[in-house]
Amino acid sequence: MTRKSLIETIKKKQSLLCVGLDTDINKIPEFLIQEYDNPVLEFNKRIIKATADVAVAFKINTAFYESQGETGWKNLIATIDSIPEDVFIIADAKRADIGNTSKMYAKAFFEKMNADAITVAPYMGSDSVEPFFEYKNKWIILLALTSNKGSLDFQYLPVDKNGTKLYEKVLKTSSQWGNINNTMYVVGATHPEDFLSIRKIVPDHFILVPGIGAQGGDLELVLKNGLNSDFGLLINSSRGIIYASSDRDFDIAAKNKALELTNKIRNIVKF
Amino acid sequence: MTRKSLIETIKKKQSLLCVGLDTDINKIPEFLIQEYDNPVLEFNKRIIKATADVAVAFKINTAFYESQGETGWKNLIATIDSIPEDVFIIADAKRADIGNTSKMYAKAFFEKMNADAITVAPYMGSDSVEPFFEYKNKWIILLALTSNKGSLDFQYLPVDKNGTKLYEKVLKTSSQWGNINNTMYVVGATHPEDFLSIRKIVPDHFILVPGIGAQGGDLELVLKNGLNSDFGLLINSSRGIIYASSDRDFDIAAKNKALELTNKIRNIVKF
Repeated sequence: MTRKSLIETIKKKQSLLCVGLDTDINKIPEFLIQEYDNPVLEFNKRIIKATADVAVAFKINTAFYESQGETGWKNLIATIDSIPEDVFIIADAKRADIGNTSKMYAKAFFEKMNADAITVAPYMGSDSVEPFFEYKNKWIILLALTSNKGSLDFQYLPVDKNGTKLYEKVLKTSSQWGNINNTMYVVGATHPEDFLSIRKIVPDHFILVPGIGAQGGDLELVLKNGLNSDFGLLINSSRGIIYASSDRDFDIAAKNKALELTNKIRNIVKF
Repeated sequence: MTRKSLIETIKKKQSLLCVGLDTDINKIPEFLIQEYDNPVLEFNKRIIKATADVAVAFKINTAFYESQGETGWKNLIATIDSIPEDVFIIADAKRADIGNTSKMYAKAFFEKMNADAITVAPYMGSDSVEPFFEYKNKWIILLALTSNKGSLDFQYLPVDKNGTKLYEKVLKTSSQWGNINNTMYVVGATHPEDFLSIRKIVPDHFILVPGIGAQGGDLELVLKNGLNSDFGLLINSSRGIIYASSDRDFDIAAKNKALELTNKIRNIVKF
């Protein structure tokens, strides 16, 4: 998907919502497991159908599928196939390796699957990212400042005399590798105050924001500090939406939660 | 596999060799593709059979399997299943995510597959790594100083007044998360001089060393600077061994290349 199409979708749906499909077979409604041969796929299809009118993106966390072995990988592919064309698809895979290997990851997620974007870890540097850029209208979403406690271990380390932090250096350096049409960043909602310095470094890039909901991020401050003239934010919620209910109407409950979050966004953002 | 068993295997086989199964369907012998329903698995099984008596470890690069979609994932599992019990199995997956997600990756590689170790990226910090430690006799192999050109982008950045480099900080900090029985490090053979400072920080840890062969690393200097009293090194070669020939005797050619590298190691290391 192009940047232009993404922005149009945001305007049309009046939403910045990304729904995270972190589908754990131990957390989905019991009746699906009893009544369906493939309860995970059934769950995903219903969540997708129920939320696609307010979701501008779906983020599929590959770990949850890999943990189910071969069936899981099959479900990962089938889930991506069942997402409507106007929704931006993120393979949340956190990959990256030496060039000839990253090329294989690009093939896995951009050819074998039709993901629009893949999340990528920055530690291995430029040549671990470049193979992804060979695909037109595909994106990398590079980890900058993650939402977890462990983000404090290395990402805030000062890397020069001016006190530039590692995540700021990652932003500065990597923004030269690609451009605003093929690169986004991950910045956790648990660091809302840092969006100010981040926007000084990457004013125009889109930022994927996890950490709202279960992880306790501050939505209002993220929007205040992070929005740009093209919106520039995708706000992810996973567990808070998809596990809203374990009853038969779990999809309606998910839709309501998705709408609730979208309305919070609509109260602040002018679409 | 325990550290003790690994060291015993090293002594028994008189080898530090890790054979990398970066199996690319476009690079395996043509006759396999013509004659076998599953040429990749056939290739792997023959390579494993031919080299298992000198290999103390096999490293399976997950990207090459993921790039083949569902069949690839199936082959990844079947390949691991076909490795003899006395060989250390590394899932070269470069994963890591927030805690609840890393838990799923641990399940994928330590339960659904019987890997002994998984390579892990350090950027997301402690809680992205901890879930892997819940499995007894399983290992993480954390990226410290990688073999590629992009290792120069961030890994050498100074992170304090004393000029400690980021990869040194990663070693220092992460060596407190686990211990020498569940943590190894990746250090590329393309940085042989850095093994000296690395051994000051992690004298007792095992180090997985990629970058010999196709990437041009310096074996002799790596051994000189990196060995410790428990050997402490696994020397990986992938392309240089498995693609030694595209003829019918590719497995014999691979065996010879594996032996050639092992003999180079035996000339320097006292087992």
